[in-house]
Amino acid sequence: MDVGHRALTGPGDEAVARCRKLVEPALREAVAVLHPWGAAMAAFTLGWSGIDGKPRHHGAGKGLRPAIALLSAEAAGGTAEPALPAAAAVELVHAFSLVHDDIIDNDEQRRHREALWKAYGVGPALVTGDALLALAVRQLAGHPAAMRHLSAALVELVQGQTADMAFEQRAWAGPDRVSTEEYLEMAAGKTGGLLGAAAAAGVELGGAPQLAPRMWDMGRDLGVAFQIVDDILGIWGDPDVTGKPVHSDLRREKKTLPILAALSSGTTAARELSAVLMSGATDDDTVRYAAGLAEQAGGRDAAQALAERYLSSALHALDECLPDAAELRDLCRSLVDRVN
Amino acid sequence: MDVGHRALTGPGDEAVARCRKLVEPALREAVAVLHPWGAAMAAFTLGWSGIDGKPRHHGAGKGLRPAIALLSAEAAGGTAEPALPAAAAVELVHAFSLVHDDIIDNDEQRRHREALWKAYGVGPALVTGDALLALAVRQLAGHPAAMRHLSAALVELVQGQTADMAFEQRAWAGPDRVSTEEYLEMAAGKTGGLLGAAAAAGVELGGAPQLAPRMWDMGRDLGVAFQIVDDILGIWGDPDVTGKPVHSDLRREKKTLPILAALSSGTTAARELSAVLMSGATDDDTVRYAAGLAEQAGGRDAAQALAERYLSSALHALDECLPDAAELRDLCRSLVDRVN
Repeated sequence: MDVGHRALTGPGDEAVARCRKLVEPALREAVAVLHPWGAAMAAFTLGWSGIDGKPRHHGAGKGLRPAIALLSAEAAGGTAEPALPAAAAVELVHAFSLVHDDIIDNDEQRRHREALWKAYGVGPALVTGDALLALAVRQLAGHPAAMRHLSAALVELVQGQTADMAFEQRAWAGPDRVSTEEYLEMAAGKTGGLLGAAAAAGVELGGAPQLAPRMWDMGRDLGVAFQIVDDILGIWGDPDVTGKPVHSDLRREKKTLPILAALSSGTTAARELSAVLMSGATDDDTVRYAAGLAEQAGGRDAAQALAERYLSSALHALDECLPDAAELRDLCRSLVDRVN
Repeated sequence: MDVGHRALTGPGDEAVARCRKLVEPALREAVAVLHPWGAAMAAFTLGWSGIDGKPRHHGAGKGLRPAIALLSAEAAGGTAEPALPAAAAVELVHAFSLVHDDIIDNDEQRRHREALWKAYGVGPALVTGDALLALAVRQLAGHPAAMRHLSAALVELVQGQTADMAFEQRAWAGPDRVSTEEYLEMAAGKTGGLLGAAAAAGVELGGAPQLAPRMWDMGRDLGVAFQIVDDILGIWGDPDVTGKPVHSDLRREKKTLPILAALSSGTTAARELSAVLMSGATDDDTVRYAAGLAEQAGGRDAAQALAERYLSSALHALDECLPDAAELRDLCRSLVDRVN
């Protein structure tokens, strides 16, 4: 769900950095109203300071979601400013979801440092997540059209998270196995909704509300592509780059697309992979072996191809809505290309 | 924070039951969009079903917050219906806050049964809390004026929760002790904000937006009174009635008003209470002894008097805004009178 910390390469980079600078004052202003302790935890989780409270200059997310909101507004109406509340809101929701995800998944690391719950305790982290969400809602309270997109994304987000958790309890094989369709619905909720809201609220506040429904679809498809790439990097990415422990998704029986695709390939490797996964062993050797089998069974390629297909669909919608949105187009592409 | 499950006595009762019937279809409709697992957890936490998924007819909250919203709307404009989205939203936020509070406080019991996290696990409960909040936001997404009240209440709520947690880490005596003023600010946030939003959004949607600021103050004062009474019942209430383990606030070093008031009384009992609390002992005998000392030191009476003062202030505001709101007036009074 979080790929923002990985180095992006490509022409979208500069635009993202510009948008990050635009939205940061709004984020800092939002967080400043919190209780000092809450503000410190929010600053930690947003990457602005260390656990010692001292400012730091790495560990922040790239700010992809605000960039999508601001670039959508610019392309729709000429200026990014009207979409700043939406940009801040989607970044705050993203931060909220990471804080709660790390508690749920018991993940101790985030962006190369301790997860918030690990640094401050579960209770304080939980409330800080709630606070980030409250601040997000507050950003858009006075903008009902954009608020509708945000609230739809919130509902999608919790649906996707619930489905993702429910998948962990299902078997790898047999009638109870998770289908690709179920995975795609989960990913559209967990990751797509918020990207959809960023794009839709961006054009809504940018002065082109008629484009909002199509931009919502654009963002959702982009989100699915994004999540699939995240799954690929979670298995075959370099932990030094991703900031996450290697193979943690496999260990946790996360039903990720590359594994689901591998299992349904009908190959010998698929049968062996199934047996290995069903054994329940999670030692390093077994998990590394499973990752190899998944690749042999074509899971990695199939996932990459599906990510490309969702990206194409997103770009098609984008070209229809905003044919001159070159920076946004570059940004979308860079999110999928980064695995190459 | 939760007193809704205790038997109310008094003339407000019937109105609350009527409002509960009015809002329930909206709540059921909201929850129905969730993932089946999420819907089951929401139904459990709202008291509609047991962990076996079977319907049950006790364990639901009284629905005080929706009653405040609906009775405010009725008194302001003649009908409750326009305020139904606000009524559902405040009840969903209340449910969200209880689910997360029980995780934070490690409370295993809620309304005479297992807390949601105890029944389903921390991760699923956490997401269900988030889902209830998402549904609340969705209720009011199209009502910007009411949404502003709700989002202000959300920010207050997390501020109050953060302050309450921070208090637990502070000493009972000495320069770091929690002052009554700090307590009152915390209670106004943790409990007052949502009651303020219920009242303000109620008149807002009921057709009298000019009353909203004063009704917000009314609800906040009522919330402070409510929280103080909750604190009193948490120490001297009957656990069979409250559904909470006896003295749990004392064991957890919660800085509740009766104890703070007792400690600042300058009595011999206060000095002894201070010594007992500073010892850190939390066995049954010590905690019971501390409760006795707090009563001797006048903490219970002082808390009760302060609750009455906040109730008076709330009723004064209510009489100014809605002089004919007899049912709402009765309801407010019953919330404080229930300790007598």
